[in-house]
Amino acid sequence: MPQSAVAPTYRVGVLGASGYSGRELCALVLGHPNLTLAFATANSQRGTTLRVRAGGRVHDVPMVAPEEADLAGVDLVFAALPHGASAEWIGKVIAAGARVVDLSSDLRPGHGGVTHALPAGVPADAPYGMPELFRADMANARVVANPGCYATSILVALAPLAKSGLIAPGATVNISSASGVSGAGASPKLELLFAEITEDFRAYGVGNAHRHLYEMRATLARLGADCDLLFTPHLLPVDRGILSTISVPLSRPLSDALAPYREAYANEPFVELTTGLPALADVQHRNVVRIGAVIPTGLRQDTLLVFSAIDNLVKGAAGQAVQNANIMLGLDEGAGLQA
Amino acid sequence: MPQSAVAPTYRVGVLGASGYSGRELCALVLGHPNLTLAFATANSQRGTTLRVRAGGRVHDVPMVAPEEADLAGVDLVFAALPHGASAEWIGKVIAAGARVVDLSSDLRPGHGGVTHALPAGVPADAPYGMPELFRADMANARVVANPGCYATSILVALAPLAKSGLIAPGATVNISSASGVSGAGASPKLELLFAEITEDFRAYGVGNAHRHLYEMRATLARLGADCDLLFTPHLLPVDRGILSTISVPLSRPLSDALAPYREAYANEPFVELTTGLPALADVQHRNVVRIGAVIPTGLRQDTLLVFSAIDNLVKGAAGQAVQNANIMLGLDEGAGLQA
Amino acid sequence: MPQSAVAPTYRVGVLGASGYSGRELCALVLGHPNLTLAFATANSQRGTTLRVRAGGRVHDVPMVAPEEADLAGVDLVFAALPHGASAEWIGKVIAAGARVVDLSSDLRPGHGGVTHALPAGVPADAPYGMPELFRADMANARVVANPGCYATSILVALAPLAKSGLIAPGATVNISSASGVSGAGASPKLELLFAEITEDFRAYGVGNAHRHLYEMRATLARLGADCDLLFTPHLLPVDRGILSTISVPLSRPLSDALAPYREAYANEPFVELTTGLPALADVQHRNVVRIGAVIPTGLRQDTLLVFSAIDNLVKGAAGQAVQNANIMLGLDEGAGLQA
Amino acid sequence: MPQSAVAPTYRVGVLGASGYSGRELCALVLGHPNLTLAFATANSQRGTTLRVRAGGRVHDVPMVAPEEADLAGVDLVFAALPHGASAEWIGKVIAAGARVVDLSSDLRPGHGGVTHALPAGVPADAPYGMPELFRADMANARVVANPGCYATSILVALAPLAKSGLIAPGATVNISSASGVSGAGASPKLELLFAEITEDFRAYGVGNAHRHLYEMRATLARLGADCDLLFTPHLLPVDRGILSTISVPLSRPLSDALAPYREAYANEPFVELTTGLPALADVQHRNVVRIGAVIPTGLRQDTLLVFSAIDNLVKGAAGQAVQNANIMLGLDEGAGLQA
Repeated sequence: MPQSAVAPTYRVGVLGASGYSGRELCALVLGHPNLTLAFATANSQRGTTLRVRAGGRVHDVPMVAPEEADLAGVDLVFAALPHGASAEWIGKVIAAGARVVDLSSDLRPGHGGVTHALPAGVPADAPYGMPELFRADMANARVVANPGCYATSILVALAPLAKSGLIAPGATVNISSASGVSGAGASPKLELLFAEITEDFRAYGVGNAHRHLYEMRATLARLGADCDLLFTPHLLPVDRGILSTISVPLSRPLSDALAPYREAYANEPFVELTTGLPALADVQHRNVVRIGAVIPTGLRQDTLLVFSAIDNLVKGAAGQAVQNANIMLGLDEGAGLQA
Repeated sequence: MPQSAVAPTYRVGVLGASGYSGRELCALVLGHPNLTLAFATANSQRGTTLRVRAGGRVHDVPMVAPEEADLAGVDLVFAALPHGASAEWIGKVIAAGARVVDLSSDLRPGHGGVTHALPAGVPADAPYGMPELFRADMANARVVANPGCYATSILVALAPLAKSGLIAPGATVNISSASGVSGAGASPKLELLFAEITEDFRAYGVGNAHRHLYEMRATLARLGADCDLLFTPHLLPVDRGILSTISVPLSRPLSDALAPYREAYANEPFVELTTGLPALADVQHRNVVRIGAVIPTGLRQDTLLVFSAIDNLVKGAAGQAVQNANIMLGLDEGAGLQA
Repeated sequence: MPQSAVAPTYRVGVLGASGYSGRELCALVLGHPNLTLAFATANSQRGTTLRVRAGGRVHDVPMVAPEEADLAGVDLVFAALPHGASAEWIGKVIAAGARVVDLSSDLRPGHGGVTHALPAGVPADAPYGMPELFRADMANARVVANPGCYATSILVALAPLAKSGLIAPGATVNISSASGVSGAGASPKLELLFAEITEDFRAYGVGNAHRHLYEMRATLARLGADCDLLFTPHLLPVDRGILSTISVPLSRPLSDALAPYREAYANEPFVELTTGLPALADVQHRNVVRIGAVIPTGLRQDTLLVFSAIDNLVKGAAGQAVQNANIMLGLDEGAGLQA
Repeated sequence: MPQSAVAPTYRVGVLGASGYSGRELCALVLGHPNLTLAFATANSQRGTTLRVRAGGRVHDVPMVAPEEADLAGVDLVFAALPHGASAEWIGKVIAAGARVVDLSSDLRPGHGGVTHALPAGVPADAPYGMPELFRADMANARVVANPGCYATSILVALAPLAKSGLIAPGATVNISSASGVSGAGASPKLELLFAEITEDFRAYGVGNAHRHLYEMRATLARLGADCDLLFTPHLLPVDRGILSTISVPLSRPLSDALAPYREAYANEPFVELTTGLPALADVQHRNVVRIGAVIPTGLRQDTLLVFSAIDNLVKGAAGQAVQNANIMLGLDEGAGLQA
């Protein structure tokens, strides 16, 4: 991978480094050729160090309180704070002159269903950081809203169908997703203990109650689709990975299940198509969306069955955040993401 | 548990005891108050013993070749042989004068999509052994076709809707199921090794290619439903259990999601309803179908979202087989199934 | 299992029902033919119900605050409270006239290494409730100290050697144990989350720092052994089960590795010997210690290698507690433990 | 990572690419800056392709029969063939003029306990490829015997003690190791199926019966230690990783548990020391041995308790093989191993 002799280097910080997305961000930044980690904050673990594996080594990253972070001394901040708590800090970062990739739902399309009064300087219409769909929006952005993990797996799979009018108007797109437990965060909760999760499987947030539906509906509408979504997430006894199984009623027959994807993503380095079926093992620790599709037999309604697999912490969170930061900073979009 | 002083005892045999369903059958028979295990066959493991846990003890069950089994000396045979290999042995058992519960797909409605020439004496229309739907058919049956594991989890969930005309005519019922690995059998295959399954999740048999669709379609038609099924099974990194997530377009609005189930299954000891969401941990090692349901918001099409959990080796195979045998032999339907 | 027509029934309570041992106690009591569950306390979860599977059914057990428990209305209390917090409640139970099986380390030999001032009426020398070694001590006891899980797996394996002088005087007995995560309790801690445990394995409490060493050393001394223990516990990515691998320097050669066990445990229903190697899968959900042993080759020092497997929540906690309660109440020792 | 403008490139082949070590070798070679993969053989899977993840991409590597491999067209061959089958192929490779890193036990010290007549040209005393101990032996070697996975984890932990005379003469070093299932190979066997391994833990090959004992004993003798080994491997429900827990009777007291390791491995890039306890999660997918040590209390015999963690497929097999190949070919020893 030849790189220019004068590759620029930027200083970045991570707000909320003790969660699983925050840890992954630290690892990606530490292994990134053009980024250096200036600070990592974790309110409850201030004063401790976080063990992070990157570039073949184990790093001990000191955790500081967010108030101690030198916001003015960095070029960009990754904010991996809880939903609702993020906007305030984004305001401070912007005031300090740095850019932001925000991993909360606060600034995403639909704002996670919650209307917050945003601090001064925080845009209500931050670009939605899904490069494969909206790369151009991010060129000069000061703030980018990083998509949700489920939303990433689903929208990358639905967008080519939406844009080409293939989704039957008024129909229900049925989405059954299953996520590894790291998607539920690193807060200690009884129901996330090993003994509660191993050998089990269950749905949660059912009946269209999940926060990610807002950004999915808003984005599909923007892409021209007039459909309903029925989204049912499940909790898997695995660490990381999301598989979405998506049934799409079609407005017209399709003879080649993958054709819409070949066309839409021919030049996308972080979308993989397979003539087989994507599995979590194909995507773990990688910044890709891996897509397979089949046309089911025996149905009166023309239908496409799409499978989409991602690593929820990489393409579903930290990896996509770094991809977005690369775009915002004018770096190679894949820098730090090939390992 | 008071039992009559003159509780009858029947001698039974298991054909195909080395698979996971066969092992579970041996365990249930060994712990059954009215059954004794006369023989257990396993062609490739003849001469060895199978370790089976039942009634608080570990038993060593000798495996014999099927040719060595004394078919004439038993009252009933459980046939847990591979699909396609079962019919021949059923013929021999019937000729020997014993009854049969067959766990293969050979005699189920739709015959697993394969037309076999059946041996003399083997009925093409054996009752389908799902007691909650077709108990009366089994009273005097010499042969009962035990349902498939996925079919059990799905048909018990769909039957009350089908019978009351709630499924929208012509609509597609969307079924996403996930099964533990024991459902794939005990044949050594690379893709079932621990190192291949742990931390992974994937679909298989997609696009309406699974054998169980035949018995599901035939049964729904018999119950009066005119719908299409889109069935997508997935492979879970767990030992046992199936969760089916089923989206049903409705012909009319429903105000109480569980009402059809309360009515249909009020007196069924092996169907459990929950106002929450059923999980694999609720049903493992138990002979039940556990059902939850919600009415999703935000959809133009009236829809019911149903969740159905079973243990694939118990209510999905061996437990239901014992339940059927109890009915055929005039025993208490739950005998040997409460542990 | 024929039982007398006038089988007595006793009322019991569980203090500390929300932990894994407490839940298992509730399940065993609910399935016990001679016990009824009068109350179950859980300070932090008072007012909620605990879902417990027992006797083929799912029970919803109401949780009350310990202050609300009717201590005077029960015959026996199982105390599954944190180490250090138990003695106070034992005093109250005794004052109310009930018996106690205490699952904490407070009253065990060596008292877990901590000297507490015991409340009035609480004996400092409560019998150590390991029936296979000290059954006679419990006949008229008002309080029994239930052994630790590791201690159970190790002492049942070492006792026959200790009593027959087979352990080389002054030698170090090397014990490497591995436990399922339920042994670490149900308190939400980051390090016990599924994502932290899956695919990992590590030691903890090393260098002879574990609380169970006190009861092990005291008990071995009582049995006549003069040896040192080097005990290293490890944390397994499984729910339940302990396997202890124990290397014992011998005072004299042994020709038959299992001989000491055959002699010592010929009439013990809850000790199983195997000429193979015991595994967690053999003992999960069962009230047994399963023991295997081999004489290693190539060593100058005569040595016996012993393997001991238990379910940490059953024979290692709740099951042994019920076994002890059965003895204290004059019931069949195995009542409620055969399922 | 600056690299010389004229970094050499070598062509290599993999014999036995379908096993877990073989797959890992293909992945490491594909991601190696100085190696290209000329062929990969797999007798039973000839004509198929192997999916390998390397360098952020998924590669489809064609499998050929070993007879089709162009042995004369490569500089070095990695032989990952079954024990006993390797020597014949090594002879052919040497005759064709290429070098060999052999991952079988056939050429290791002690030869895995089996005396084979070696083909012409195959040295009976190939250097033992553990660079941290015997780097100098490999400089001009045509054949290197890659160590066993258990042997790597144990010998790197024992060597500093052996060389400094710290192991008490005549004493028994007690080793309890636990390995992920990938160490048992990719041959489909019933006992390696997911449903057999999950939630279980057991010992195997006990009583000093494991093949790796030969190379461990021979190497310790070479390093000057006069001790016995008692080695007990266990099978973990994880994919990859070995943790060895080693109790070493000392010839003299030690005040700093890690001192021998700090001295011996100060300049070794692939040995990590920790003042905590090493865990599998620290080493998976990395070419390191991670070591922790404590001095246990309460023992009459001075003792050191050492913990050693490796990834059995990396430092325990394919990674160490690449490290050895780098040495043999004059490359940077860590080339291709930092990812």
